[in-house]
Amino acid sequence: MTADHTRVCDLLAEYGALIDLGKFYEWLDLFAEDCRYQILPRENFDRGLPAALVYCDSRAMLEDRIRALREANKYNIHTDRHVIGLPRILDDGLAVEAPFAVYQTDQEGETRLFATGLYRDQLEISGPRLKIRDKLILLDTFAIPSLLATPL
Amino acid sequence: MTADHTRVCDLLAEYGALIDLGKFYEWLDLFAEDCRYQILPRENFDRGLPAALVYCDSRAMLEDRIRALREANKYNIHTDRHVIGLPRILDDGLAVEAPFAVYQTDQEGETRLFATGLYRDQLEISGPRLKIRDKLILLDTFAIPSLLATPL
Amino acid sequence: MTADHTRVCDLLAEYGALIDLGKFYEWLDLFAEDCRYQILPRENFDRGLPAALVYCDSRAMLEDRIRALREANKYNIHTDRHVIGLPRILDDGLAVEAPFAVYQTDQEGETRLFATGLYRDQLEISGPRLKIRDKLILLDTFAIPSLLATPL
Repeated sequence: MTADHTRVCDLLAEYGALIDLGKFYEWLDLFAEDCRYQILPRENFDRGLPAALVYCDSRAMLEDRIRALREANKYNIHTDRHVIGLPRILDDGLAVEAPFAVYQTDQEGETRLFATGLYRDQLEISGPRLKIRDKLILLDTFAIPSLLATPL
Repeated sequence: MTADHTRVCDLLAEYGALIDLGKFYEWLDLFAEDCRYQILPRENFDRGLPAALVYCDSRAMLEDRIRALREANKYNIHTDRHVIGLPRILDDGLAVEAPFAVYQTDQEGETRLFATGLYRDQLEISGPRLKIRDKLILLDTFAIPSLLATPL
Repeated sequence: MTADHTRVCDLLAEYGALIDLGKFYEWLDLFAEDCRYQILPRENFDRGLPAALVYCDSRAMLEDRIRALREANKYNIHTDRHVIGLPRILDDGLAVEAPFAVYQTDQEGETRLFATGLYRDQLEISGPRLKIRDKLILLDTFAIPSLLATPL
């Protein structure tokens, strides 16, 4: 179980770091072959409303999404910084929750809070590594400006 | 010692997660039977001034406090997000410090930094679990608006 | 490897905590005898521009720097809070990356985001402890007001 804690922390840290580095194809590789990635306002989730802001239920779909983002970002140049807080490891060690804050810095050098929320991940063991089977991102707000700008 | 690190992280993560989920009675259960919970501006603490913003020296008192908060929150609807940074484990593993940032999101969907500070916890071993015997919350500011809105 | 994770987390947590406590001489002691400490805007780093905002390549130089900061801070009184996110441990366990957010609170009690960025550390084993041999701080912005106010 101790090893799980370390591996879970490593996976989460890598998840944030690879987005911040813009290494989106390495980031994609953190997901299992069969995977799901969703962004939902927490309010919708709490009320059982399924309307997701982003919904990808395969790695191919997620890859398309990333390609679109990279194109869009040519017109919205910024950098991201994910600060992921201590995770809560549930049940069998393969269900994880972690709070996050994402900051964005624009070309004028201004850094702003972009979003806060909670990751709810289902992981799977893939050889020596953990991979993400299901990532549910509960955003604290429904009012994210220019949401397309980056994966969370 | 490694196990302690994991268990301490788990306890802190659960502490923040349960507040953010509004599960206040499960949160209360993280405290030992005999416990103390205080919120102090760090400036007061550094100067040795005892004036606490919140002071509860029993779980019953903390429970009363929570009940009052739930009532007050009917008029101040918001959600919280705790991002707890890496903890510093002192001495015997039962004294812990961890920095935190708390964000609040209001009904218009605006997310703001609410408070930053430091947890200073004394823990105790209670069967298979760690419980909080003494939680001292040092707030970086003395100027918290609507402090009553949520436990930190 | 698990032990490394714990020790790395402890070192990072202590690093932030000692700055926030203003214990700069204990903080200096986290560095190896032969050490380097640099602050660079990430943009410069990404483009291979070496221009550092702060560059110290010995502990004596870092100590001078700290002494100057303490002098300057008599005129810019504030407190700091480092929230350090989950670290990414690379290679042999002695290369570490961790995202951070630093908040400052002024004398009026206002808390503001001061800076976000990434630590990239090379560590070394020094008896029972880890020490910092090389700390590269990549700031997300080139536009930090009053950068001199505090070590990051």
